[in-house]
Amino acid sequence: MRMVDIIIKKKEGKKLLKEEINFFVKGFTNGTIPDYQASSLAMAICFNGMDKDEISNLTEAMLYSGDTIDLSSINGIKVDKHSTGGVGDKTSLVLGPLVASCGVKLAKMSGRGLGHTGGTLDKLESIPGVSINIERTQFIKQVNEIGIALVGQTGSLVPCDKKLYALRDVTGTVDSIPLIASSIMSKKLASGSDTILLDVKFGSGAFMKNLDDARELAKTMVEIGDSLKRDTRAILTDMDQPLGMAIGNNLEVIEACETLKGKGPKDLIELCVNAGSIMLMQAKKVSSYQEGKELIQSKLSSGEALEKLCQLVKAQGGDDKYIKDTSLFEKSKYIINIYSNKEGYIKEINALEIGEAAMKLGAGRSTKEDIIDPTAGIVLSKKVGDFVSKEEKLCEIHTNKDDYKVYIDEVIESFKFSDTKVDINPIIHEIVE
Amino acid sequence: MRMVDIIIKKKEGKKLLKEEINFFVKGFTNGTIPDYQASSLAMAICFNGMDKDEISNLTEAMLYSGDTIDLSSINGIKVDKHSTGGVGDKTSLVLGPLVASCGVKLAKMSGRGLGHTGGTLDKLESIPGVSINIERTQFIKQVNEIGIALVGQTGSLVPCDKKLYALRDVTGTVDSIPLIASSIMSKKLASGSDTILLDVKFGSGAFMKNLDDARELAKTMVEIGDSLKRDTRAILTDMDQPLGMAIGNNLEVIEACETLKGKGPKDLIELCVNAGSIMLMQAKKVSSYQEGKELIQSKLSSGEALEKLCQLVKAQGGDDKYIKDTSLFEKSKYIINIYSNKEGYIKEINALEIGEAAMKLGAGRSTKEDIIDPTAGIVLSKKVGDFVSKEEKLCEIHTNKDDYKVYIDEVIESFKFSDTKVDINPIIHEIVE
Repeated sequence: MRMVDIIIKKKEGKKLLKEEINFFVKGFTNGTIPDYQASSLAMAICFNGMDKDEISNLTEAMLYSGDTIDLSSINGIKVDKHSTGGVGDKTSLVLGPLVASCGVKLAKMSGRGLGHTGGTLDKLESIPGVSINIERTQFIKQVNEIGIALVGQTGSLVPCDKKLYALRDVTGTVDSIPLIASSIMSKKLASGSDTILLDVKFGSGAFMKNLDDARELAKTMVEIGDSLKRDTRAILTDMDQPLGMAIGNNLEVIEACETLKGKGPKDLIELCVNAGSIMLMQAKKVSSYQEGKELIQSKLSSGEALEKLCQLVKAQGGDDKYIKDTSLFEKSKYIINIYSNKEGYIKEINALEIGEAAMKLGAGRSTKEDIIDPTAGIVLSKKVGDFVSKEEKLCEIHTNKDDYKVYIDEVIESFKFSDTKVDINPIIHEIVE
Repeated sequence: MRMVDIIIKKKEGKKLLKEEINFFVKGFTNGTIPDYQASSLAMAICFNGMDKDEISNLTEAMLYSGDTIDLSSINGIKVDKHSTGGVGDKTSLVLGPLVASCGVKLAKMSGRGLGHTGGTLDKLESIPGVSINIERTQFIKQVNEIGIALVGQTGSLVPCDKKLYALRDVTGTVDSIPLIASSIMSKKLASGSDTILLDVKFGSGAFMKNLDDARELAKTMVEIGDSLKRDTRAILTDMDQPLGMAIGNNLEVIEACETLKGKGPKDLIELCVNAGSIMLMQAKKVSSYQEGKELIQSKLSSGEALEKLCQLVKAQGGDDKYIKDTSLFEKSKYIINIYSNKEGYIKEINALEIGEAAMKLGAGRSTKEDIIDPTAGIVLSKKVGDFVSKEEKLCEIHTNKDDYKVYIDEVIESFKFSDTKVDINPIIHEIVE
């Protein structure tokens, strides 16, 4: 078998066989197939796509390109969730403790933030003492004991995806649904959980800018999961404006804690209650959506979910007094109120624009080497649909950068106004099963 | 400027600017742009093509990626011709001396054969003593003195194409008209001639399998030449069957000599007379096609063209007694007559199949490292349209391989028969100017 023939076959729009996909994944992982052939194949896939079988075979080959995690020593059904990334997306910090407090096991590996999107690991590490580098046996022990662990990915998991993703990033081959879907799913499947809930975001702040692409990605990933015998479901959620009010690492942790205390923003609560209910059904803890929502709500009101977050933080070396009293979190040197220079109904808070502004204030990385300021970010005072008077507060910016003034215009300009009332999109647009 | 943005732009079907193309060619040539980005761009070009301006800009950038040859010290208009490659294509060996004997200057750089197609350099080197490695000033002196030189390409000419061609070969990105056209034309333009005649072959033995693709390639190359102010014309010629009767290196030299003695096969003579006439018009030696044909015919009948080949061979270190008496050429150990097992009109001598058979008998290279046997090949006794009785001779094979019998079936099977008379295609299908 020759790699050039595989490339030509895909370029001609033909279907690749399982053996051909395996040959590529194996050779690319061990270095016998060079980057220049892999990037050429990736570009051909961008143009000609892949069918269900090819995507499933590619995912399976990548999944087994390195270590996989065996969670069989954890009792019960292990659930997992994955977000395609957004601005202000602290869902895992709320949803994780929520489902774990319902008695479901969540052994989750998360990623770091890049560009305008944040990452769960960076948020967790903004809690003093918390470590995300947990050794494999300790990770399993922790899930068995308290039902939840949120950790970083180990280096040996899906090495093919690691290499291919880095290559796609510099060869213009990122935006291909077969490649995105197989990348996400190979990692999720290698992490060993029995069920997967995918939060596929769409809108200005999401990787998928429109609903149709998000739906196609969600369906593709659900099909992969089904073909590899894992209960996989997806929700399509709105990322036209940031999720919740806080953007930035410890600012989002604070919001997550407040949400678990019953004082969270409406969209975040709605997302967590509904997503949690689906996860409980996947774990066979409940038999209906409604039953799931009620159980989740009860754990939120009783404080058990908050207590679960405290357990998680302590188990991973952190100090849970910050969770109980969020006023203890370190703050930025500058906390500046930003006022509106217009009057009207907010029709958009462009998530990409405000996410990039938050990144520049110190909350994110523009390259993988950048260091994050855990205290930096933006806290919204208003959301889409709200009426704002001139000189009314729109948000506050938190930063340690002395030159923060140069970013204020960007923050203000991410708010778009309308003279007339604005319809608000539901946070969950649809469920794909 | 970032290479990844250039790749994405082409992937999205947008037009690349001159600066972007220059950035790519410069960076790829000097190694700052890695192969994996170049192959990804090449694949995007395969899918989305390039317009006239882009192709012209790419050719110009490649042309200046290394040395160019200055032929200004040669008096008069310097003509050049290029064939896209075929089986039995000894045109340059006949046409070169023909036009030079008419007083036109031909300073030509040729290539080697690969796969089923032969190369002029290999054919020349099958003449004892002939060297194709001529130093630059000697090359120019020779053209000034005798009007012709046929040499190998120098290493520093169009280094970008050298790298890109090798990369395309292993990344499934060979069959793109913008890439083929810019590759050929950058080399031709860098060689410094004033006019270029392109012999674009189509059919089973050609790179372009059908007439439409050949026409598009020809038009594209003529447009490039025009945009860069060189008189460029093209002929579309038939390569469904081999050109002439001989396939193989010294076998083709012998046929070229016989042709210059007035005993050549009809298709080869027709091609050389017509192509020569166009070259004489390009060189402003004649003012009409008819006048050109007459001048060419006179040089053929007078023996002056044959004498020019003798001068060329001597100037490049060879012994011209082989040209005068071709029976002196070394012969293969085995010369085997192949007889027909069918009766009928020959409707096809598949040039790809018989070319590959000749290669396996020793006449060609399947990889760049293979060594050519100058005596090996096939000499046809029949051409398309001829009637053949059962047991009549179809061709003879020349080889030094003791296991030649395993290739006989391939040779025979390249002949296809018809019960009814067969129309013969003219060798020159059309002229593109």
